[in-house]
Amino acid sequence: MSGFTAADYRGRLGRAQALMAEAGLGALLLTTEPDIRYFTGFLTRFWESPTRPWFLVVPVAGEPVAVIPAIGRALMERTWIEDIRCWPAPAPGDDGVSLLAETIGEVAPEGLIGTPSGHGTHLRMPLADFGRLCALVGVERMAEGAGVMRDLRMVKSEVEIAAIRTACAVAGRAFARVGEVAGEGVPLARVFRDFQRLCLEEGADWVPYLAGGAGPLGYADVISPATDAPLARGDVLMLDTGLVVGGYYCDFDRNYAVGTPAPQVEAAWDSLLQATEAGVQAATPGARACDVFAAMDRIVGGSETGRLGHGLGMQLTEWPSLTAADRTVLRPGMVLALEPSVGVPGGGLLVHEENLVLRDDGAEILSPRAQGPLTRI
Amino acid sequence: MSGFTAADYRGRLGRAQALMAEAGLGALLLTTEPDIRYFTGFLTRFWESPTRPWFLVVPVAGEPVAVIPAIGRALMERTWIEDIRCWPAPAPGDDGVSLLAETIGEVAPEGLIGTPSGHGTHLRMPLADFGRLCALVGVERMAEGAGVMRDLRMVKSEVEIAAIRTACAVAGRAFARVGEVAGEGVPLARVFRDFQRLCLEEGADWVPYLAGGAGPLGYADVISPATDAPLARGDVLMLDTGLVVGGYYCDFDRNYAVGTPAPQVEAAWDSLLQATEAGVQAATPGARACDVFAAMDRIVGGSETGRLGHGLGMQLTEWPSLTAADRTVLRPGMVLALEPSVGVPGGGLLVHEENLVLRDDGAEILSPRAQGPLTRI
Repeated sequence: MSGFTAADYRGRLGRAQALMAEAGLGALLLTTEPDIRYFTGFLTRFWESPTRPWFLVVPVAGEPVAVIPAIGRALMERTWIEDIRCWPAPAPGDDGVSLLAETIGEVAPEGLIGTPSGHGTHLRMPLADFGRLCALVGVERMAEGAGVMRDLRMVKSEVEIAAIRTACAVAGRAFARVGEVAGEGVPLARVFRDFQRLCLEEGADWVPYLAGGAGPLGYADVISPATDAPLARGDVLMLDTGLVVGGYYCDFDRNYAVGTPAPQVEAAWDSLLQATEAGVQAATPGARACDVFAAMDRIVGGSETGRLGHGLGMQLTEWPSLTAADRTVLRPGMVLALEPSVGVPGGGLLVHEENLVLRDDGAEILSPRAQGPLTRI
Repeated sequence: MSGFTAADYRGRLGRAQALMAEAGLGALLLTTEPDIRYFTGFLTRFWESPTRPWFLVVPVAGEPVAVIPAIGRALMERTWIEDIRCWPAPAPGDDGVSLLAETIGEVAPEGLIGTPSGHGTHLRMPLADFGRLCALVGVERMAEGAGVMRDLRMVKSEVEIAAIRTACAVAGRAFARVGEVAGEGVPLARVFRDFQRLCLEEGADWVPYLAGGAGPLGYADVISPATDAPLARGDVLMLDTGLVVGGYYCDFDRNYAVGTPAPQVEAAWDSLLQATEAGVQAATPGARACDVFAAMDRIVGGSETGRLGHGLGMQLTEWPSLTAADRTVLRPGMVLALEPSVGVPGGGLLVHEENLVLRDDGAEILSPRAQGPLTRI
């Protein structure tokens, strides 16, 4: 289902190598699921196990080399990657470190070895092993990743956009069926379980993220797991899902009124729709992430977290951040979640979210857009 | 549903502080979901978003301090943690680093600051920010975590064991219903989707892991996602799930024969049951992880990955590893997955998996144990 060809991966490699050359990097050392998948297509849920590190060395010239646990060889051999080096992980004494250092010495004998180190990244290997690697490669050769992965991954190809569009459509169909599983008296935890079931029925490969909340005047936060508290007449229910199809996420939410919502909830909902529309209008190539934030913030004002949206794709949330501080210039092909939130007077929060892709002439909405009054269930 | 009391968390803290004092640590700096949840009970799926770092400082004396993004305050306030310090993340210029350094200086002015750095760990924050933190705190004060978290988390309390037992029971009920969703002609991808649905129906909070495979003589590996290939008569189907209830995993698989399996599949299955029984007998307090490996390896021999099981709990896989090299001494309260695998002559692999907890007098099986011939579907 991935739809990616070897030519797609070679295109990514070429663009990466141009950026690496510009930054003076001899190679990129990648350790995380999305970064490694970006160049290889290696897709597995096995990353859920923290036991084994995985490495991809992307040299400034030549092809990527996978340095991975033997358990992954069969799956990596099904990708376009030809140079696959394995060790029998876990191996406590030397868990791939000397094999990795040797590989770097061979395919990138010169230049800096860049590791993604900036905002939204982490190094997925034991810190002590990274220290040993630095000693073996030469600490003076180890460098930051110069934002190469951020630059590349922020702009999506048409195949990636199609995958995200499919994920949005799946979630949209599941959201349209929420009335089947939620209503007065139903415990929130059961709604969460059943909604994930609906996502699977509608075509999700898996459902890595679901959050939500319910209350008469909004919800306390947007990251809590469900409790067994039953939905009550007058509650507003919010469900926010990041489901995956073909390795790509959607990330949007929907709000529902259990019976008739309070007038201040209706008013908050109205301002969220207005803020979303302002965000859509502001999301054009050449604008900055902070401009889109400002357009929404002018309407909803004073968001507690100060972030009203973000990129998405291979991960639930990616760069850029729609905040006052993020001056990233928007480019065609960027996929964004607009996520305005607003306080309900005397109560909690209301949050609304839509996904879009930037085109030359503005935003194309990928999620089946919410309009009009709050959906009653 | 968590069932943990503040006294449980205080008990963990006390044990941690004793180990820290022994290791000469002034504090532990924790950055990952399970490590932070271990001391706080902070449970959210929001970790799926890589955008924001989260920190917990556990001083050698006194109470833990949460240094977290503002978006997490409401949920952290519902835990027993009283000292919660927030910043409006994401903040590109200083994403919690100076607040964290200041906190460390205040609650742990002396001694080394240990960060989990060993096998199966990683540092969940941008590497560049960690460099800044080291400079602020003093690089000479930064140290490895001395295995404190490994030592603590490897031995489970009765509340933790009960949660894992519940997760095992949920998966067991879902596995018992596989005949409803799988059979000749059904695409594997549909089986994967429907099986996750069954897990949710039977009580899973969410299903972070599902892998599997199918083929007439076993499967090529145990980490691949599903394809659209339909199940064929004579295939053996394997589903391996790690589902979560109350924040705790089970991790076991089941094999099914579509019609009548090949004789060499029956023979392989028989040796897996024997190896499992040998592992169960060997899993006693005082034995080492490598002894349990050896007991199973004597029967199945020559496993490609060299690992025939592992710990589990807050993560799908934890310490120890059942390998020839892991000399961890087993203690009552450790929860293990026995996972023998064997090659099928002329074909692929067969893998079987059960979960158990170590008691004073031996193993108590937590998964509804598979016995007898392969289940026909």
